[in-house]
Amino acid sequence: MDHLYEKTVATKQIFKGKVIDLEVKEVELPNGKMSSREIVKHPGAVAVVPMTKEGNIVLVRQYRKALGKTIVEIPAGKLEKGENPLESAARELEEETGYKTKKLEFLLSFYTSPGFADELIYLYFTDELEKGTVNMDEDEFLDLIEVSLEEAEKMVKDQTIHDAKTAYAILYMRMKAGFKS
Amino acid sequence: MDHLYEKTVATKQIFKGKVIDLEVKEVELPNGKMSSREIVKHPGAVAVVPMTKEGNIVLVRQYRKALGKTIVEIPAGKLEKGENPLESAARELEEETGYKTKKLEFLLSFYTSPGFADELIYLYFTDELEKGTVNMDEDEFLDLIEVSLEEAEKMVKDQTIHDAKTAYAILYMRMKAGFKS
Repeated sequence: MDHLYEKTVATKQIFKGKVIDLEVKEVELPNGKMSSREIVKHPGAVAVVPMTKEGNIVLVRQYRKALGKTIVEIPAGKLEKGENPLESAARELEEETGYKTKKLEFLLSFYTSPGFADELIYLYFTDELEKGTVNMDEDEFLDLIEVSLEEAEKMVKDQTIHDAKTAYAILYMRMKAGFKS
Repeated sequence: MDHLYEKTVATKQIFKGKVIDLEVKEVELPNGKMSSREIVKHPGAVAVVPMTKEGNIVLVRQYRKALGKTIVEIPAGKLEKGENPLESAARELEEETGYKTKKLEFLLSFYTSPGFADELIYLYFTDELEKGTVNMDEDEFLDLIEVSLEEAEKMVKDQTIHDAKTAYAILYMRMKAGFKS
């Protein structure tokens, strides 16, 4: 047993929602003391770095009610029931940008808020975009922005991109494109 | 008014916890339809990239109950009531690593999960570490790991670092150290 392990003594379900659930767990710490952990259960999500044939990254500006404002992000969304991450990534890309793709390359995954949530995001890349036939969903409200990778990196530096997954994805692309040591 | 704005029609408080609160908001979408948003309220957090005089980054491995396993992260923690981010960063650094510092440089901030939470993390850097006098808190259970920036970058690439804030912080340091174009 890991010496850092926290044993669950009791679990209380607080909320079951359409996106997240909330539970509180009573845990026994490694020193035998008791504590509680507030845990958000999330279905997991996908995000896509979509690159046009001109080499631009397609970003979306959308309103985030949790923040009370719009922010700039890569296309992303939560996994729907029964959907695998690859299908989900293709769906979210088309719903949010209108672009279809037959080729999605898995880059990496990451936890967004391990202190209180189990959300894991699967990140994909595509540089084969075709104009889709599906109209953007009438319940999706967002603006599309196309920028070069260099511009996107500037937006990370000046915090115009203020979202961790987007900033991480841009810097990861930048690293792949060649950080020289 | 922003054309993407979602107007709050009603707010229902679901839970008030020691770390997070949960509320559900009924909102009016830009097309006049109604929807609901599940929102986790978080006090905000800080994270620190601590660099030793040998140029190594100090990382912590800790058990995250939300994930049911240990992961590797930079030292981090939530803002306590009445605390500003700079004070919080110095405190968390010492509590988690035993290192004190008089110099913390603010690097940037970022949202971790804008789809369902308002958590904002303030990221700091220090390369002036002194052995603190405070013993590590008896309720903090973690292992310390020191790695070079190059090793940390490898850990991002091979997903040994699976936490978004840590991966972003490492790539940001790497960018500062010189991505050559």
